[in-house]
Amino acid sequence: MAAAAEEARNREALRQAVVNTLERRLFYIPSFKIYRGVAGLYDYGPPGCAVKSNVLAFWRQHFVLEENMLEVDCPCVTPEVVLKASGHVEKFTDLMVKDEKTGTCFRADHLVKDFCKEKVEKDPNLPAEKAAEYKHVLAVLDDLLPEELGAKINEYGITAPDTNNSLSAPYPFNLMFQTSIGPSGLTPGYMRPETAQGIFVNFKDLYYYNGNKLPFAAAQIGQAFRNEISPRQGLLRVREFTLAEIEHFVDPEDKSHPKFSDVAKLEILMFPREDQASGKSETKMALGQAVSEGTVNNETLGYFIGRVYLFLTSLGINNKKLRFRQHLANEMAHYAADCWDAEIECSYGWIECVGIADRSAFDLNAHTDKSGVPLVAHEKYAEPKEVEKLVIATVKKELGLAFKGSQKKIVEALEAMGEKEAMEMKEILETKGEAEFQVCTLDKAVIIKKNMVSISKEKKKEHQRVFTPSVIEPSFGIGRIIYCLYEHTFDSRPSKDGDEQLNFFRFPPLVAPIKCTVFPLVQTQEYEDVAKSISKSLAAAGLSYKIDITGTTIGKKYARTDELGVPFAITVDSTSSVTVRERDSKQQIRVNVDEVASVIKEIADGQSTWGDVQWRYPTHSS
Amino acid sequence: MAAAAEEARNREALRQAVVNTLERRLFYIPSFKIYRGVAGLYDYGPPGCAVKSNVLAFWRQHFVLEENMLEVDCPCVTPEVVLKASGHVEKFTDLMVKDEKTGTCFRADHLVKDFCKEKVEKDPNLPAEKAAEYKHVLAVLDDLLPEELGAKINEYGITAPDTNNSLSAPYPFNLMFQTSIGPSGLTPGYMRPETAQGIFVNFKDLYYYNGNKLPFAAAQIGQAFRNEISPRQGLLRVREFTLAEIEHFVDPEDKSHPKFSDVAKLEILMFPREDQASGKSETKMALGQAVSEGTVNNETLGYFIGRVYLFLTSLGINNKKLRFRQHLANEMAHYAADCWDAEIECSYGWIECVGIADRSAFDLNAHTDKSGVPLVAHEKYAEPKEVEKLVIATVKKELGLAFKGSQKKIVEALEAMGEKEAMEMKEILETKGEAEFQVCTLDKAVIIKKNMVSISKEKKKEHQRVFTPSVIEPSFGIGRIIYCLYEHTFDSRPSKDGDEQLNFFRFPPLVAPIKCTVFPLVQTQEYEDVAKSISKSLAAAGLSYKIDITGTTIGKKYARTDELGVPFAITVDSTSSVTVRERDSKQQIRVNVDEVASVIKEIADGQSTWGDVQWRYPTHSS
Repeated sequence: MAAAAEEARNREALRQAVVNTLERRLFYIPSFKIYRGVAGLYDYGPPGCAVKSNVLAFWRQHFVLEENMLEVDCPCVTPEVVLKASGHVEKFTDLMVKDEKTGTCFRADHLVKDFCKEKVEKDPNLPAEKAAEYKHVLAVLDDLLPEELGAKINEYGITAPDTNNSLSAPYPFNLMFQTSIGPSGLTPGYMRPETAQGIFVNFKDLYYYNGNKLPFAAAQIGQAFRNEISPRQGLLRVREFTLAEIEHFVDPEDKSHPKFSDVAKLEILMFPREDQASGKSETKMALGQAVSEGTVNNETLGYFIGRVYLFLTSLGINNKKLRFRQHLANEMAHYAADCWDAEIECSYGWIECVGIADRSAFDLNAHTDKSGVPLVAHEKYAEPKEVEKLVIATVKKELGLAFKGSQKKIVEALEAMGEKEAMEMKEILETKGEAEFQVCTLDKAVIIKKNMVSISKEKKKEHQRVFTPSVIEPSFGIGRIIYCLYEHTFDSRPSKDGDEQLNFFRFPPLVAPIKCTVFPLVQTQEYEDVAKSISKSLAAAGLSYKIDITGTTIGKKYARTDELGVPFAITVDSTSSVTVRERDSKQQIRVNVDEVASVIKEIADGQSTWGDVQWRYPTHSS
Repeated sequence: MAAAAEEARNREALRQAVVNTLERRLFYIPSFKIYRGVAGLYDYGPPGCAVKSNVLAFWRQHFVLEENMLEVDCPCVTPEVVLKASGHVEKFTDLMVKDEKTGTCFRADHLVKDFCKEKVEKDPNLPAEKAAEYKHVLAVLDDLLPEELGAKINEYGITAPDTNNSLSAPYPFNLMFQTSIGPSGLTPGYMRPETAQGIFVNFKDLYYYNGNKLPFAAAQIGQAFRNEISPRQGLLRVREFTLAEIEHFVDPEDKSHPKFSDVAKLEILMFPREDQASGKSETKMALGQAVSEGTVNNETLGYFIGRVYLFLTSLGINNKKLRFRQHLANEMAHYAADCWDAEIECSYGWIECVGIADRSAFDLNAHTDKSGVPLVAHEKYAEPKEVEKLVIATVKKELGLAFKGSQKKIVEALEAMGEKEAMEMKEILETKGEAEFQVCTLDKAVIIKKNMVSISKEKKKEHQRVFTPSVIEPSFGIGRIIYCLYEHTFDSRPSKDGDEQLNFFRFPPLVAPIKCTVFPLVQTQEYEDVAKSISKSLAAAGLSYKIDITGTTIGKKYARTDELGVPFAITVDSTSSVTVRERDSKQQIRVNVDEVASVIKEIADGQSTWGDVQWRYPTHSS
């Protein structure tokens, strides 16, 4: 207990230190601060904005470009019909309770969760039986119906935080921001809760653009919106955020992936559902093994797990604090084939940052049904295939005579028979002349005679197979990834005089908001001119930099920029060549003035590492 | 008249050809097409999305990086208080009329505009007097009050298009998408109509981040929303769009710009308000001259005009179809110091694509007033300055005795006197012993005696000047720029057999959605392997490409990709070096296999031109 409390304090302290640095250096700003802000809305300030655009640029490089994905960009404003088809209008809800006096709203599950956690963690006299009950409630919280959750609130005597007033019964609150499109007020719309629907509704065009071939992936980066009931967890649960989503469309009969071997040897922390159920923790596993043993459902899903792992660790996420957790059966949508979340451990615990779901044909089927436009793929056979097709021909005259007003429903029920049922009826009709037939829509059985229906199988030539593709969806919460990145790269070291701890971020060059600083060693016009000309070539190469031509010491100049995680410092100490220092190793090399921008660019673009360039240039010892 | 009609037909034909190509190759897609779409909402399909991200990346390079701007990223969801302060809740409206039977909504000014234009352009028997009247209405349309516009509709007998039903009187419709933040329904919000407000509310933090120094610029790229009454003009007037905005904060007493000389020699089509009023057309002018003659209000405004010109022409906008038009006095907000629009000529006429406004201190003052947080800058004096300050000391006891309950209002009125009024009263009191004083809040005059107030001037030392900065705002409509770019780069040439016209886009390498294609000259395993290894190095260098290993002829391969405006084609015709062909000149050079990706990258990043690299490699003649 004491160790857990101590760990909680350490986490809290780390979070405070990180958040203070982030806020002080404007990595982020609570939005509309001069108007006392709005819960769950944050701005990215200059360095945060640079980190975000670096992360997104790398995402485009790593996924869109390297995998030849079709990127699209759809509006946030979405008409209701689309989100009715996707199920969001009906189901994208959280259960809410209201303080019966003040009207303040709370998430019902949060209140029950807080109550149970508090009891389990902080009540030393809790009987074992009660502890077990609270733990069980915590485990099944997501599955409770409104009435069940309401019953728990009453049973435990949970009241409104702060006021202790009694609470209303829980009821569902839709998390989409609602609006109205056009001036008439007749076209309801919502701000999209995810970017995926924009891709699904375009499936037909994208499939055509891809030469009517599967598999292919479409991708989208954009804003998404969730009108949270009461946002908590700072930057992790917000009301507007950037998503990057991939929809990889694949033949459901062939989910192999040609590049799976590229990632098969990666050893990754995996947390399959059986291990979660039996109380084990995550274990390292080779992806190839995870797929071949069936832990991960298929190669394509496995390939994306590997690519996501490479993406996150390249950004600077610590691979010891990154695990892939499989959804439990009760977490997954009924249609999903398999689902894994990339979870990153930070001071808030393990946080879902990327969801990788095999959603089968659900979304395309839903939009096909609602729009009437078939969102399907075709596989042409090399040679036409002969297939047997079931043909059920009803004799309406006989059926009408026998059943009158019920005729229509009986005809529909007969025509809807599956192959097995139909062939059984055919046999009975042929042997006995009549058969009993259950008609659900009439809620009774009727007697069908031989002359009322003819059942047969006919051979037909088919030239192609028509099917709805499965979709595998990796969905990235960019803000969450960035927040975890801040915690993972945060570090501190004593100042030169040892008086204080200096905080800094060990950002990899790829994500660092500022790639390098430029200082003249001494304040002369000559050195200043060199510094300015280097700055110009850095900007032309697309590299962010800070130039510092004040007279303070180099040590102080380093300290000023360390908090921003600048990986390289260029010191102008001659007019022909300069010293380049790397932040973490503190190693220094000498590089010609006219080469220095391209050396930094090579590393910042991820084409080389510091290790690669270091041996090409002489070492500098100061 | 015939020539004008002919020109209109040509424009219409060009637009049709461009739009057909764009739609067929999925540069854009009407959003939610399978649900019959929503007017004014469009998706960027794969090549359009690539063009957009190239344009935005270049914008970041050209403005944010090269000018050291502070980029921020704020939410789209905005609470009402912010947009009340900015004036959008009250004034961001268009005048609307309704079909009185069907309820269909129209923009009132559009209907009047269409009526007048139709008369002027197509009625050969129109009396000169009438023609002059319609032209006058067209000129002042934006200034008409609702009643005046309603009167015109009645006078001209304008009815609803299609139905010919009568129309309601015009009334203002707010163009913001409204929503509600949080579950209570008590916090109204809007989807932001521009990104600028997010910057203004952060002024204090950004000024601090910049070391409390002026001038500095903040920038933001993001979605903005306008719930248009009835969107027309295809991709030019949409309900959701990407804006890129700059707010350059500057001392109102010093609007010089240190880099103005970099752009002073640019010769640009300018269209000052005097020339518009006198019916002249735009003329070429050097920017330096425009500023020194006072045509453009100040250097900073002039500098941005130059930078915008360079930005647009680098993208491929034709500089003969790009002009900077000054706002007429009636177009400008009352607070604006000067305002120039970058207008691009396309098939819809001259279209505003970038607005460059000197908005003085309006926005910061508005948010200071509403929030109570002073959004000001400080200028420290080198030495403290001695200033005279007016001091008005009221003697509350005497005033209380004389005026009882009215005392408070009289004290406030006395303390609120300006310098001139106060010094006049001082003189009267000294000479006559009492003075008549008008108190607005009491709506009457009172007699003030000498013993009731002491008025004096005291000398004080001031260490700094406190002032509200002016803001110069270049605001870019990214979608409009991209659409004009499509028209300006669209071209066609006869196919090889001369049977048909092949369309293509002359995109500069910087914006081309696909930078190059890779074809093996003949279908051998060896060449295919080389083509694949080149593709890999292109992707690693961040370059988009298409590989075509089918057996069709090179000519057909070129035609396939021409419509996408691919600038370079790499033909693999040996295993050590390859042929690189440039789209427009059709010139070819030979480059080593392991160098080819970096050569393309150099050009695509804008570091070199085809002309630069061409002489470094041997020419290839096929």
